[in-house]
Amino acid sequence: MADKKMVEAITSMDEDFAQWYTDVVRKAELIDYTSVKGCMVIKPAGYAIWELIQSQLDSRFKETGVENVYLPMFIPESLLQKEKDHVEGFAPEVAWVTHGGLNPLTERLCVRPTSETLFCDFYKNDIHSYRDLPKVYNQWCSVVRWEKETRPFLRSREFLWQEGHTAHATAEDAQERTIQMLNLYAEFCENVLAIPVIKGQKTDKEKFAGAVATYTIEALMHDGKALQSGTSHNFGDGFAKAFDIQFTDKDNKLKHVHQTSWGMTTRLIGAIIMVHGDNEGLVLPPKVAPVQVNIIPIMQKKEGVLDKAYELRDRLSNFRVKVDDSDKSPGWKFAEAEMRGHCIRVEIGPKDIEANKCVICRRDTREKIEVSLDELESKVAEILDTMQKEMLERARAHREDHTYVAKNMEEFEKLFTEKSGFVKAMWCGDQACEDTIKENLSVTSRCMPFEQEQIADTCVCCGKPAKKMVYWGRAY
Amino acid sequence: MADKKMVEAITSMDEDFAQWYTDVVRKAELIDYTSVKGCMVIKPAGYAIWELIQSQLDSRFKETGVENVYLPMFIPESLLQKEKDHVEGFAPEVAWVTHGGLNPLTERLCVRPTSETLFCDFYKNDIHSYRDLPKVYNQWCSVVRWEKETRPFLRSREFLWQEGHTAHATAEDAQERTIQMLNLYAEFCENVLAIPVIKGQKTDKEKFAGAVATYTIEALMHDGKALQSGTSHNFGDGFAKAFDIQFTDKDNKLKHVHQTSWGMTTRLIGAIIMVHGDNEGLVLPPKVAPVQVNIIPIMQKKEGVLDKAYELRDRLSNFRVKVDDSDKSPGWKFAEAEMRGHCIRVEIGPKDIEANKCVICRRDTREKIEVSLDELESKVAEILDTMQKEMLERARAHREDHTYVAKNMEEFEKLFTEKSGFVKAMWCGDQACEDTIKENLSVTSRCMPFEQEQIADTCVCCGKPAKKMVYWGRAY
Repeated sequence: MADKKMVEAITSMDEDFAQWYTDVVRKAELIDYTSVKGCMVIKPAGYAIWELIQSQLDSRFKETGVENVYLPMFIPESLLQKEKDHVEGFAPEVAWVTHGGLNPLTERLCVRPTSETLFCDFYKNDIHSYRDLPKVYNQWCSVVRWEKETRPFLRSREFLWQEGHTAHATAEDAQERTIQMLNLYAEFCENVLAIPVIKGQKTDKEKFAGAVATYTIEALMHDGKALQSGTSHNFGDGFAKAFDIQFTDKDNKLKHVHQTSWGMTTRLIGAIIMVHGDNEGLVLPPKVAPVQVNIIPIMQKKEGVLDKAYELRDRLSNFRVKVDDSDKSPGWKFAEAEMRGHCIRVEIGPKDIEANKCVICRRDTREKIEVSLDELESKVAEILDTMQKEMLERARAHREDHTYVAKNMEEFEKLFTEKSGFVKAMWCGDQACEDTIKENLSVTSRCMPFEQEQIADTCVCCGKPAKKMVYWGRAY
Repeated sequence: MADKKMVEAITSMDEDFAQWYTDVVRKAELIDYTSVKGCMVIKPAGYAIWELIQSQLDSRFKETGVENVYLPMFIPESLLQKEKDHVEGFAPEVAWVTHGGLNPLTERLCVRPTSETLFCDFYKNDIHSYRDLPKVYNQWCSVVRWEKETRPFLRSREFLWQEGHTAHATAEDAQERTIQMLNLYAEFCENVLAIPVIKGQKTDKEKFAGAVATYTIEALMHDGKALQSGTSHNFGDGFAKAFDIQFTDKDNKLKHVHQTSWGMTTRLIGAIIMVHGDNEGLVLPPKVAPVQVNIIPIMQKKEGVLDKAYELRDRLSNFRVKVDDSDKSPGWKFAEAEMRGHCIRVEIGPKDIEANKCVICRRDTREKIEVSLDELESKVAEILDTMQKEMLERARAHREDHTYVAKNMEEFEKLFTEKSGFVKAMWCGDQACEDTIKENLSVTSRCMPFEQEQIADTCVCCGKPAKKMVYWGRAY
């Protein structure tokens, strides 16, 4: 009965996806709410996922020459105001520090919502010659944006992220780094998080405040809504001119640098939940699962069972492994392991020991596999590997099944009324059409994908000649 | 000439230690100042040291069952005020957020100076039964304290640290964890940072705001000043009572938890600089050196030299290794490698290649060693190992040489006038004596060491019967 209660406590995802999400986030003990409105506690099970994301992303960064730094969390108001578009984009949603200790400050400081202005202020003094370029710096930190409505991982007033900020001698170098990082993000999402993404460029309406061009990776959640999962911006020399970041080039001329920035955040954890989760709870790709193997002893009071469980744990020390030796019933342990997204559970009881075998159950398919103890290590490795691959394939199939094509407004409206997912449709390039679509259907342009298709000749909205195929969707 | 200039640019440590420190910090490119008063940029060479500290400390934590979490950076004013001593200790030095976006907040938020109150607020909801205990959580984050005078790494308005916060069923468990973490810190300082420390308890005057007992590790810098390098606090059930953190124990009774906290910060980087540095610049213990081996090709334009340097780099891939193939002169490269604290440099030129050898120069002793290329890997490992050990031994010898004993006030005053270092002296336990000593000599009690000695029977200050031997010193 207790086992059932735990499972029943989650809302079904088909019934109420938003409530299902909140239930999973709480029941899998990923986060907790706090007395600080709009801010959350990331609990051990949630933070461990972030640590696995961090370490695998960071090592990819370093392979491309990224160096980590740390800049202050405060931005003086005058500094924030130096780049016009940037301050307009961010000033309305920052938190302001007005007092230090017992005294009012002579100038307000905002808590960084992003650090372009700080990096510019730093680069201005740090860059003199072409020999100092490129600068390819990144920081792992928290940022604050005073959001009105918040949701765990997806939108909170404070969140964790990495922000890369680079400076280059030429426009070409900056563009190359912008795309390099977008490709790195896409590869990471697919190969580590098992989330397939669409790579493309944001429209001018949707681009970052102060950027020349913003590139994005867009993922499709299980409910058919889109999630922007990472962005990479090319700033051209706009910030460099506003902040006067110049260097002496090989030809002995003073030139402005060209800059980029790129970021990924803890919202990736939200994406993992919404792409892979099911009605039993969290499903985690093995590469970011804090517990890959949960060994659950059956009839653990019988002599030799617990010892065998510990022996198996020691043999599986190449994996993230635990033994659930608590005094709960096996059924309860199974339900809990499923809720928390442990990738595979290994059941081992007296009969298994006698037969020199164990039963392995995969979290994603719930398939049960009998495995001889003689080949435990290799089978576990193989199953985790298969699971990682199949989770990506299933997510890709789901996205394909929920990606539609609309040639005109009638088809477009019908799709967004009856279906949920991505809709590919042509666009004239005019912001008025984006505005109309957003107003009428609450649908936004997700990106102009790198892989363009000629779906029709005319804009889905106004009927004028089309310039680009766009992925449209309702987004988190 | 250029080579000389780089070295000459550092002030000698005997001439002006404070200026030497600032010079090293800047010339080794560890930090930069910013437009944000009292806050610094930690540059790649500085942040890489912090990453090495983090990873080695974090793995030690995890071996003792610590789990990482992340709590908000903001504390509502009402929450900060719940524990009386704590708010008195911290309120005068916090930064206050008063506006979120365009609107004033209904309640001010301070940027965390430390997170006891947030953890208590969290534990209050998260702990119900003895089964939920112990909680052994830690977070890596930045904190803000509105210091008036700041110095790179040693005292800045924002700094990076880890803060562990635990909750236990009994007072004994809390005390055990407090001491366990202090011991872990001491072992880490000695074996990783090559810094010997004195372990002891702070006097009531010097203990943490809200703690029952504060334990500390105290290190001695090269100039004879002390640096508090890590602290571990036992809170008893004071916070638990203020925040109402109760659990149902095995005997079915409601009880308050017992808590601890413990922290180490980026000031450890300041300690490394001031314990090991010399007039050529930074000297880093191999275990936290971002560059352990710097291969410097001699006559690198000669055919085969650069290729050989890259070959050696590939053979040394178990170490943190770089090849300096820039177009600077070897002399300049040597000076730069010394300034930045690269542990060993490997010189390889045409003659060395012909003789199948290279010259290895140790940063700490500047000893030159001819090594056959056949045994390169093992020799490098051996030299780094020896260097790590000898750096600790030298630091220990320096501390012993600068630790004095005073039986009465005359000796005490004479020592603090003529010498600099630790002075061991007896104390009656009365705060008035600490106040007098501080006022007259700018000397504070560093700790009551675990290893007590009976130096005299009477207090060094008032002559009344002594209770404790205390380490006294001038501190950063």
